[in-house]
Amino acid sequence: MASMSAVLSKSPFLSQPLSKSPSSDLPFSAATVSFPSKSHRRGGVIRAGLISPDGGKLVELVVAEPRRREKKHEAGELPRVELTAIDVQWMHVLSEGWASPLGGFMRESEFLQTLHFNSLRLDDGSVVNMSVPIVLAIDDEQKASIGESKRVALVGSDGNPVAILSDIEIYKHPKEERIARTWGTTAPGLPYVEEAITNAGNWLIGGDLEVLEPVKYNDGLDRFRLSPAELRKELEKRGADAVFAFQLRNPVHNGHALLMTDTRRRLLEMGYKNPILLLHPLGGYTKADDVPLSWRMKQHEKVLEDGVLDPETTVVSIFPSPMHYAGPTEVQWHAKARINAGANFYIVGRDPAGMGHPVEKRDLYDADHGKKVLSMAPGLERLNILPFRVAAYDKTQGKMAFFDPSRPQDFLFISGTKMRTLAKNKENPPDGFMCPGGWQVLVDYYDSLTPAGKLPVPA
Amino acid sequence: MASMSAVLSKSPFLSQPLSKSPSSDLPFSAATVSFPSKSHRRGGVIRAGLISPDGGKLVELVVAEPRRREKKHEAGELPRVELTAIDVQWMHVLSEGWASPLGGFMRESEFLQTLHFNSLRLDDGSVVNMSVPIVLAIDDEQKASIGESKRVALVGSDGNPVAILSDIEIYKHPKEERIARTWGTTAPGLPYVEEAITNAGNWLIGGDLEVLEPVKYNDGLDRFRLSPAELRKELEKRGADAVFAFQLRNPVHNGHALLMTDTRRRLLEMGYKNPILLLHPLGGYTKADDVPLSWRMKQHEKVLEDGVLDPETTVVSIFPSPMHYAGPTEVQWHAKARINAGANFYIVGRDPAGMGHPVEKRDLYDADHGKKVLSMAPGLERLNILPFRVAAYDKTQGKMAFFDPSRPQDFLFISGTKMRTLAKNKENPPDGFMCPGGWQVLVDYYDSLTPAGKLPVPA
Repeated sequence: MASMSAVLSKSPFLSQPLSKSPSSDLPFSAATVSFPSKSHRRGGVIRAGLISPDGGKLVELVVAEPRRREKKHEAGELPRVELTAIDVQWMHVLSEGWASPLGGFMRESEFLQTLHFNSLRLDDGSVVNMSVPIVLAIDDEQKASIGESKRVALVGSDGNPVAILSDIEIYKHPKEERIARTWGTTAPGLPYVEEAITNAGNWLIGGDLEVLEPVKYNDGLDRFRLSPAELRKELEKRGADAVFAFQLRNPVHNGHALLMTDTRRRLLEMGYKNPILLLHPLGGYTKADDVPLSWRMKQHEKVLEDGVLDPETTVVSIFPSPMHYAGPTEVQWHAKARINAGANFYIVGRDPAGMGHPVEKRDLYDADHGKKVLSMAPGLERLNILPFRVAAYDKTQGKMAFFDPSRPQDFLFISGTKMRTLAKNKENPPDGFMCPGGWQVLVDYYDSLTPAGKLPVPA
Repeated sequence: MASMSAVLSKSPFLSQPLSKSPSSDLPFSAATVSFPSKSHRRGGVIRAGLISPDGGKLVELVVAEPRRREKKHEAGELPRVELTAIDVQWMHVLSEGWASPLGGFMRESEFLQTLHFNSLRLDDGSVVNMSVPIVLAIDDEQKASIGESKRVALVGSDGNPVAILSDIEIYKHPKEERIARTWGTTAPGLPYVEEAITNAGNWLIGGDLEVLEPVKYNDGLDRFRLSPAELRKELEKRGADAVFAFQLRNPVHNGHALLMTDTRRRLLEMGYKNPILLLHPLGGYTKADDVPLSWRMKQHEKVLEDGVLDPETTVVSIFPSPMHYAGPTEVQWHAKARINAGANFYIVGRDPAGMGHPVEKRDLYDADHGKKVLSMAPGLERLNILPFRVAAYDKTQGKMAFFDPSRPQDFLFISGTKMRTLAKNKENPPDGFMCPGGWQVLVDYYDSLTPAGKLPVPA
């Protein structure tokens, strides 16, 4: 990633430290974070200030520096629960408040509300969205080792405590029901299920989380992992009066760029003075045939160098959540988490967080259900949902353009599968589909998968 | 059922016509139905007047007498959709407003909200509970025959139109997803699924419902099928200031009676002056090994004749809904429908609407999830949930009593399976478990199933 630092000053990637990033002269301060939410409602008057986090206050669960030593000592004395890589990603998500107001791995009442209602009712009677269970599984042996303790230490793969879970509650892990209600199917072959549920323990442990150090992955990408608090600070510095989030787990092509540019234009037309794009690739677990994060970040860098998106009005950051591929259920999580990072507009595409049915020859979800469910979801009333306009390659213009149904014969749809097949075979897509530098990253990635001397084959 | 009419005047079964039923001198009127809901909130001040229906107004979809002729004529001209017996039961449910404010079979937006959120958001932003899809399936052929028509006639088994569905919307029937999200499993062997979904059409048709005549079954039990409006009238006549509903799909034993009597006592202690019990057996589809409605009604009659429940403070009526056996999802429907009938207290037991897992050797649902989910369900905040106290046979007293955990050895738990086995074998349960007349009905029922000359065997 050494080459990336060279472009930082002129790119939308956030410069380090935060104070060096582009800022406006508008007098934003941290106080605007808790601006009353009513002013952000659909159809309301346009006002300055970021959307308030769910529950009114951003949850931050990393122990403050002065108390870390003491907490680490405490953790050393507690029963231990070992975390998987995905558990650590969820701990990261929780620790930075992406799931605000959730203060730790779910207890049973939160788990049940998530499964049945995709939302949590707070003490004041208000409702926040919460569609994906954020839970920690333990097995019989771990449960026995915890005994009557009300606290446990969460332990990383190196055996060192990374967090404390307090006032714990241990309850049954109803795997089949969790899967059925989250995915709407129990068919074998759901990637997250096979990775993180099928072989997980039969118990779930919930409680209040305290994380001993900020979570780092030491993969060269940590500087792109901005917390919601850091993103809010950056967005305020830039004087954003509208923030539109774009969730991403694939390479960016010029159709995406067109969409994002067009969204900004529409927001300006609506009267916003300074809409900022949060280009927010997902950084946690993805399935084996998705392009890995490090390659995607290289690809995004090349695309951004190409200048299709304006660095002054774009923030690129990594969203640390693992991917469920749970369609309409998961897209709510993707949207809700971005509210906590300050976004009040969310771009939703066709079949968000969807995939093929693992057993049947069809898509798992109806392509329109994601945006429909999102638009009706409890707790997301404050968020403006922007449905994706379909972009395709316009052969008459030789570039990506919004699909015009009056002349379908002029458009070429390049699916993810088609794109992967071309890149694997080192073929080029039509000119104007993706900048050559970005395309080369994909070719290099698939090349890295091919054993030397073996001919690449179509997917 | 001829013998039942003899007991009507002194029994809690509603006398016909309504004006002959027991009434109090309290000046209740229909106007109190729409009493502001806030006065009924948990912990609120006790006030007279029934809880208001969901959405503020009870939906009634039966065409008024003067317009029936005209509507029947219209129906004759429309494309036809044939109804199954279960479809008719749901049409009945809708027509009387048990699902208020739902005005017909669900369109896709209602279906999706039901599946994902167990609730519907109304135009004014308020939320009502709706946990079970009330949908009408059609097949490809029926869809083709409807063509571009915006209205269809719904047709009974005799080929005559029974209703009109207007402003229709036809959308895909995602069976697997519907099953997974409603039951939390897709295991084969779910009774309602096998009866009403697996072989149903691949499309759902929603719209505004107009039913041409009040739904009747002509099975001798129609007079016990009071609509929510009729129940409200009866409850107001009796001067109810609290209404506690007891959903039932099994024979009543003295443990139930104890519970209901005790609930009334507790409500009186809370300051209510005239709590009325709505004893409300489910009358729609039930699985093959449940005791059929006609036998249950005979059994209830005998139990009530026995005088365990006070006729002056009890209303017995049939709830026309089919049974899903969908546990925590379905219990919300059972509770919500009773709000519409005027109940502001709901008694919930262990594992409500539950059953054994169809494939695995365990209960399908955690026995406590039903009451937990019910207590957190969106749109049910106005309803007071009364958890079932466990009653068992106290051998020291020779009668049903609340279980005392300090002396478990004194109690005998008589499960439904145990009860069925005893009745099938014409054995008697312990004295004081159920009145002899009620027990004899069960013995007679199982006897009616046994081919003559064949010895009964344990279940």
